[in-house]
Amino acid sequence: MTPSHKKEATTIINNINSHAIRRIRRLRIREEREQTGLCYIEGLRFVDQAFSQGAIIETLVVARPLLDHPYAQRLVKRLHRSGIPILYVTPAILHGISLVNDPQGLGAVVKQRWKRLADIKIEDELCWIALSLVRSPGNLGTLLRTSEAVGGAGIILLDESTDPYDPTTVRATMGALFAQRLVRATIDEFVQWKQRNHCMLIGTSPSAKEDYHTITYRHPTILLMGEERKSLPIELQALCDLMVNIPMVGKSDSLNLAIATSVMLYEVFNQQRMSHV
Amino acid sequence: MTPSHKKEATTIINNINSHAIRRIRRLRIREEREQTGLCYIEGLRFVDQAFSQGAIIETLVVARPLLDHPYAQRLVKRLHRSGIPILYVTPAILHGISLVNDPQGLGAVVKQRWKRLADIKIEDELCWIALSLVRSPGNLGTLLRTSEAVGGAGIILLDESTDPYDPTTVRATMGALFAQRLVRATIDEFVQWKQRNHCMLIGTSPSAKEDYHTITYRHPTILLMGEERKSLPIELQALCDLMVNIPMVGKSDSLNLAIATSVMLYEVFNQQRMSHV
Repeated sequence: MTPSHKKEATTIINNINSHAIRRIRRLRIREEREQTGLCYIEGLRFVDQAFSQGAIIETLVVARPLLDHPYAQRLVKRLHRSGIPILYVTPAILHGISLVNDPQGLGAVVKQRWKRLADIKIEDELCWIALSLVRSPGNLGTLLRTSEAVGGAGIILLDESTDPYDPTTVRATMGALFAQRLVRATIDEFVQWKQRNHCMLIGTSPSAKEDYHTITYRHPTILLMGEERKSLPIELQALCDLMVNIPMVGKSDSLNLAIATSVMLYEVFNQQRMSHV
Repeated sequence: MTPSHKKEATTIINNINSHAIRRIRRLRIREEREQTGLCYIEGLRFVDQAFSQGAIIETLVVARPLLDHPYAQRLVKRLHRSGIPILYVTPAILHGISLVNDPQGLGAVVKQRWKRLADIKIEDELCWIALSLVRSPGNLGTLLRTSEAVGGAGIILLDESTDPYDPTTVRATMGALFAQRLVRATIDEFVQWKQRNHCMLIGTSPSAKEDYHTITYRHPTILLMGEERKSLPIELQALCDLMVNIPMVGKSDSLNLAIATSVMLYEVFNQQRMSHV
């Protein structure tokens, strides 16, 4: 190691307008994320999960004075040893990049990971979730978190309205994002794929006759969920092997999308667990 | 009706700094809501639900040019006939008050409605939810929405960290707020109340031995839910008739609080529904 190299390694960025920092801050914008194929994650849990799930970390961002968790210090060392470049910044700069209150001294620029629908092989995961329309980034994240919790494979996004790498979505996943497979496909592609792949596609609708709790979910199951308070598009309903309703009483005409999906996921999960007892 | 009275009734406020408008805007702040015992709700669904659930509407706020939904026009007429004063404002003022993109031409200042724990009588509702700690206003609202959907009675808040009349909470309830009973109590009061009232108090914890899906929920049930990723306080665990876990696989160590509560609610609801089949 030459002396100049050594000096470079300990440079601490304290200029919010530096090229490197501006580039990271721009990742808040969806267009920038899509052009670069990158996203920014922050906090110990998120960086740890991304690394352990094999996500490609382009740069680790570290504010040493804020790195007070011993596990975080060990994680930074481990990542550095594995060859990941570190951008040292001042605490003020880390807060300037951050969208959370306590970034715990670290963040990371991570490569987005997408699967092509054609490459999806249904294996022994609990199920997949296909989303016809999801407007809330937080709901998408919460839904990914529950999917991971029950052993779901991932999510097939049938529209472009939300980006799973949106900071709000990433945050709501609590790190589960990197353990889930993400696919984006058009409805046409999904229709064709469904015809080639044997699976039980279950759609939900308040007007469906079958009660979600009284049917048997056969593996492989794909849950097709749509926008709250609206029915699934007709072409998607037609594609379903079965439409089910989640019963409600009172004045309610719908559930929050993340809630409805999680109620469905736990039903499939419970049936699978109980069949092994 | 005197001519001056008639003239007054059609005054349209177009000054954001007028006393009446400043007073409504201040309701965004929790302190102001607590001092006045009021809250501000917006949109057709919310005003309609508040009215039909018997909430006391102090003032209706209407921007006539934005009131394009025929049902909204009829609702305004009905509310006016029932004696509720109307504050007419310009569209710009309504947007200045509003925290949502489309307030649909109307909002309302509504009296908060609280129940005292001592006055709670457990009747034939599905169950109650007691919340040890809830930090996210959105989660609290989503949880109230699900509780209403399954016929739950309401929520006993055991801490002060969130206000159900926070605009974010109100929004997330999708109008269900006014169909739910709200109680705030200290842990001590709750402990004493539980000792006097016969009920099955079920707490959740990842380390509990009983699987939430394998036990029988006896009426009346109270679900005790706590902060994500933390255990319930020891004194509350000791008060529970049973502690249960919601199984998870993968790397997850917790579910979002609104998700966990909803999964529990649907389990109780499904058991109750199926016992009547």
